[in-house]
Formats: sequence, C-alpha cells, structure tokens
Amino acid sequence: MTLLILDLAGIFFFAVSGSLLAARRNFDIVGSLLLGSLAGLGGGVARDLIISQGVPQAFTDPLYLLPPVLAALLVFLHVLGVQRYRRALLVFDAAGLALFCVTGTLTALAAGLHPVSSALLGVATAVGGGLLRDVVANEVPQLFNPRGVYAVPAMLGAGLVSLFHVLGVFNPVVGTAVAVLVFTLRVLSLRYGWRIPLAGRTTGAGSLDS
Amino acid sequence: MTLLILDLAGIFFFAVSGSLLAARRNFDIVGSLLLGSLAGLGGGVARDLIISQGVPQAFTDPLYLLPPVLAALLVFLHVLGVQRYRRALLVFDAAGLALFCVTGTLTALAAGLHPVSSALLGVATAVGGGLLRDVVANEVPQLFNPRGVYAVPAMLGAGLVSLFHVLGVFNPVVGTAVAVLVFTLRVLSLRYGWRIPLAGRTTGAGSLDS
Amino acid sequence: MTLLILDLAGIFFFAVSGSLLAARRNFDIVGSLLLGSLAGLGGGVARDLIISQGVPQAFTDPLYLLPPVLAALLVFLHVLGVQRYRRALLVFDAAGLALFCVTGTLTALAAGLHPVSSALLGVATAVGGGLLRDVVANEVPQLFNPRGVYAVPAMLGAGLVSLFHVLGVFNPVVGTAVAVLVFTLRVLSLRYGWRIPLAGRTTGAGSLDS
Repeated sequence: MTLLILDLAGIFFFAVSGSLLAARRNFDIVGSLLLGSLAGLGGGVARDLIISQGVPQAFTDPLYLLPPVLAALLVFLHVLGVQRYRRALLVFDAAGLALFCVTGTLTALAAGLHPVSSALLGVATAVGGGLLRDVVANEVPQLFNPRGVYAVPAMLGAGLVSLFHVLGVFNPVVGTAVAVLVFTLRVLSLRYGWRIPLAGRTTGAGSLDS
Repeated sequence: MTLLILDLAGIFFFAVSGSLLAARRNFDIVGSLLLGSLAGLGGGVARDLIISQGVPQAFTDPLYLLPPVLAALLVFLHVLGVQRYRRALLVFDAAGLALFCVTGTLTALAAGLHPVSSALLGVATAVGGGLLRDVVANEVPQLFNPRGVYAVPAMLGAGLVSLFHVLGVFNPVVGTAVAVLVFTLRVLSLRYGWRIPLAGRTTGAGSLDS
Repeated sequence: MTLLILDLAGIFFFAVSGSLLAARRNFDIVGSLLLGSLAGLGGGVARDLIISQGVPQAFTDPLYLLPPVLAALLVFLHVLGVQRYRRALLVFDAAGLALFCVTGTLTALAAGLHPVSSALLGVATAVGGGLLRDVVANEVPQLFNPRGVYAVPAMLGAGLVSLFHVLGVFNPVVGTAVAVLVFTLRVLSLRYGWRIPLAGRTTGAGSLDS
C-alpha cells in the first residue's frame, strides 16, 4: 500500500517533469500528456518487463494513468512551473528519482531478485524514466549532464534500500528517509554545481578529438 | 486472418515511412531496411513484450520481414516518394497509424487485457513505431509536432475498437471503417494545420525560459 | 563456457566504445559507466526480453557488471583511446559487433528459436547496443553512417552461425573465425570507405527535399 502510494507519487513527479519539458519545447497538450506518461511510466514498464512477471502494472491498473493526466493538466493551467520551466523540471525530476530508486528496488526485491540485482534495477528504474523523456524529446539526457550528480544519489539510495532490506530493518519510515536523502543530495548538487571527474580526465579534448 | 493482413499492411506503411526518412537523410539501402523494420515492427514488438505471451511474432514468423524488404526496395527504386519525401512519409505514417491503432487494440483484447488497457496498448502500438523511427534517426518525433493532430485520432480509433468489441458489434468492416476514419482525420489535420492547445498555453515562452 | 567468455568480451568491447563516446562528449565518470553499460548490456537485455526466458542475465549474474566497470576505468585512466577517441571507438565497436552477432545468434538457437529468427536476433543484438549508445547520447547512430558497412557484416556473421549450426558443424573455433571475419570486414570497410547504394539512389536530394 505504502509502495503503491510512493510509486504513484514518483510517477506524478516524473510526469510533471515530462509535461514541463513539453511546455518548454512548445509541444501541444497531448504531446505533454504523452511525454509525461513516458517519463512517469517508462522506467516502471521497463522494470516490470525485466522482472518478467506478466503485463506491466501501468497497462493493467488504470490508476497509473491518473498522475500523468493530472501532471499535464497542472502544467497546462500554469499551476506548476509557469516561469522557470527548466528549474521546476529539475526539481520534479529529482523528486521522481528519489522515489523511484526506492520503489524500483523494493519491487525487484519483492519479485525475488538478488539484493545486488534489485539495487541495479532500482537505479535503472530511477534513471530510466528521465532518460526516455530526454531521448524522445531529442535532448542530451540530464543523466549525462556533468553539472551536478544524478545517478550517484540514486545508486546510494537503491543500495541503502537493498542493504536495509537484507538486514531486516527496512520499513516505510526508513524508505521515506532514504528518498529524502536522495532528493536532497540531487538538489544540493545542482545548487552548488557539484562535479565528479570526467570520463576521460580532460575538459578540452572533447572538441578537439580526431 | 483479417487481423494478420491488416497488421502486415500497417507494417508495410510504417516501413515505407522509415525507408523514406532514410532516403531523405541519405542513409544507405541497408540503413533504409533497418529503419523501415524498426518503424514497421518496433511498435508491435513492444506490444508483444508488454502482453507477455512469449517471443514477439516479428521474430517467429518470417512473413513479418516481407513488408520492410518490399518497402526498402520500392523506395530504392523510386516507385514511392521520389520527389516529395516528407509529404509521402507523412501519408504512409498516417496509414500505419490508422491500421496499428486497430490491430494493436485487437491483439491486446485477444490476449485478454481489459478494454481500457487494450485501447492504451493500441495507442502505444500505433505511435510507438513512428516514435522509434524518429528517435533512432535523431529527429524530434512527429508525435510532438504541434502542427496537425497525431495521437488524438489514434486514441479515438483505439477507443472505438475497444468500445465496439465490448458491445459485441466489432467486425472486419467496422475495423476498416475505424482505420479509414483515423487516417482521414490525421491527413485532414495536416492539410488544414489543425492545432490543439499547447502544453503550457503559451507560444513564445519556450525560447525565453530560464 | 566459451559462449559466456565471448559474451563478456563483446560486452567489454561495446562498453569501451560507450565510455570512449562519454569521454569525447565530456560526460563524467558515472555517465561513462552508464553509457558503457547501456552499450555493452543493452543489446543482450533486449535479446533476453525477446526470447522470453525470464530475467535477463545482466540483472541476475553480477559477473556481467565487471566489463563496463573495467571499461570506464581504462578509459578514465587513458589506458585506452587517449588521443583518438573516434577511431578507437569505431574499432572497439567493431569488435563488439563481431562477437555479439555470434553470441546473440547462439543464445537464440539455444533458446529453441528457428535458425532464421535466431540469425535475426543475432543481428539485433549486435547492432542494438551501439544503436542504444548513440541514440541515448543524442547522436545519429553509426549504424546509419553510409561510410563503411555496419549491419551487412553482422548479417553475414549471424547467417553463417545459424547455417553452420543447422549443418551441425559449429564449434568454438568456427565461431571465432566468423567473429574475426565480421571484425575484419567492418574495419576494412571503414579503412577504405566502402559504400553500398543509398536508400533513395541519390546523393543530393536529401538536402533539397520538400
């Protein structure tokens, strides 16, 4: 039950990020609904396909359609993100990331996967929705933006959920605390421009390569 | 049987749209075959994975390979779309959209999914192939082009198929009529530049956002 | 056992290509690990989902995570590709392509698919990782670059593996020979700029179309 609520909240946050991106790119209201649905439901559908337990929830339970509809509507009505699409997008994206690394890992654990595999799948669920959103809108994914950290907080969160589960001390309060931690790290990393080393240890080579 | 024929026709139309895009982008003949295959078969493979009934048809029945091969050949020989790639692409894409929202919904209903879920999956099948085609060719998907309506006719068509099925009045003639309706709406929307409201109710904010 | 080793080697080669692309694009070290993982594991995960035999290996066997970690580390330490990212990327990509068209086809045959379907899935596995890598990094896929041949050697290799398997003469030595042939054809095609006919038989129309 708690898992369902957290999952729906995560879907809502990612769906808002998708609808905000649609607004920023001047897509129409249906494009907003579809990009929000892809961002909100894409990671979970991929996760459900990978754990191989039948038809993904998003296609069996109509409840999963409410968050994207609500998100597209709120963005359309300018309740959310009217002035600063990009900043609002990043904050909602961070909230989705935080919730999905928790719920994704829990879903995988509930399906009987190994704790390490479950944490991996939790990370894939958390970064998957935003990745699909950006790829489909033909943008370089936030995931690869070297300003701020994105996957690292999700890895930490998913790892902690798996660890606490193995230790038998996981409960909804712990899960919420982990999500808050992930969200805080992501937002602080954006605020203060945290960086980790580049893939090739250089900054200028990229534009001069062969 | 009728379903198979309509499905193959839909695959052919989407495959032509993929091969035309390949020609427009100066890809080679094998790139044309692959982009056509992805456009024609991608939506159906995703649908089959989601309904979880074993290996997708495109990988078990070699018949499914004929439409993409034929499409790449016809585009190569300039039988199709020699002068106006973009317009021809949109017309074939519309035909694929119209057939797939019908066959996608029927396949999901046949797999025992709920009518609402089936209509959703029909929409996903219908827009999925074109989405994959555009994403893989690094273009902003037609789906998000605010000029004309794309997903709305597919939603209408998939919804009608589900409704008629529930009412017990669905038959091949009804299915064909729905496909013709979807195709007509899509083409008219392009011809007359129909628009629906933007995601954020503004037209100029996109280029000025934070 | 041989299959596992060849599969891990293919994952490593594709992962290096992903990490090199990350370095070239100035992504950070975690982006490098994720792009390498996607390039190395993406094709195989898609293949495993299509053959419908439960959770994909990459999510059950932690061994599959070693090659991407190693690849990101080697690229970070400049052991690989320090000066010429693009050329090194293409060579590692070719090696991954060569191994994956062999292991992908074998995996599908082992799952009981028809030899023709198995060859198809082998091709999809071989081109899938590189396609995901390029799409996610917002680049036009190598697969569609008309300079050199990409899918053709993979089709030849997958076809030969299926044929030899049907004839009952497949063994690890034959598999390695096929992989060497595919790799050699791919690299020679880049070196000498081999081209096959364009999708639309013209070179200039693309930029002038309607």
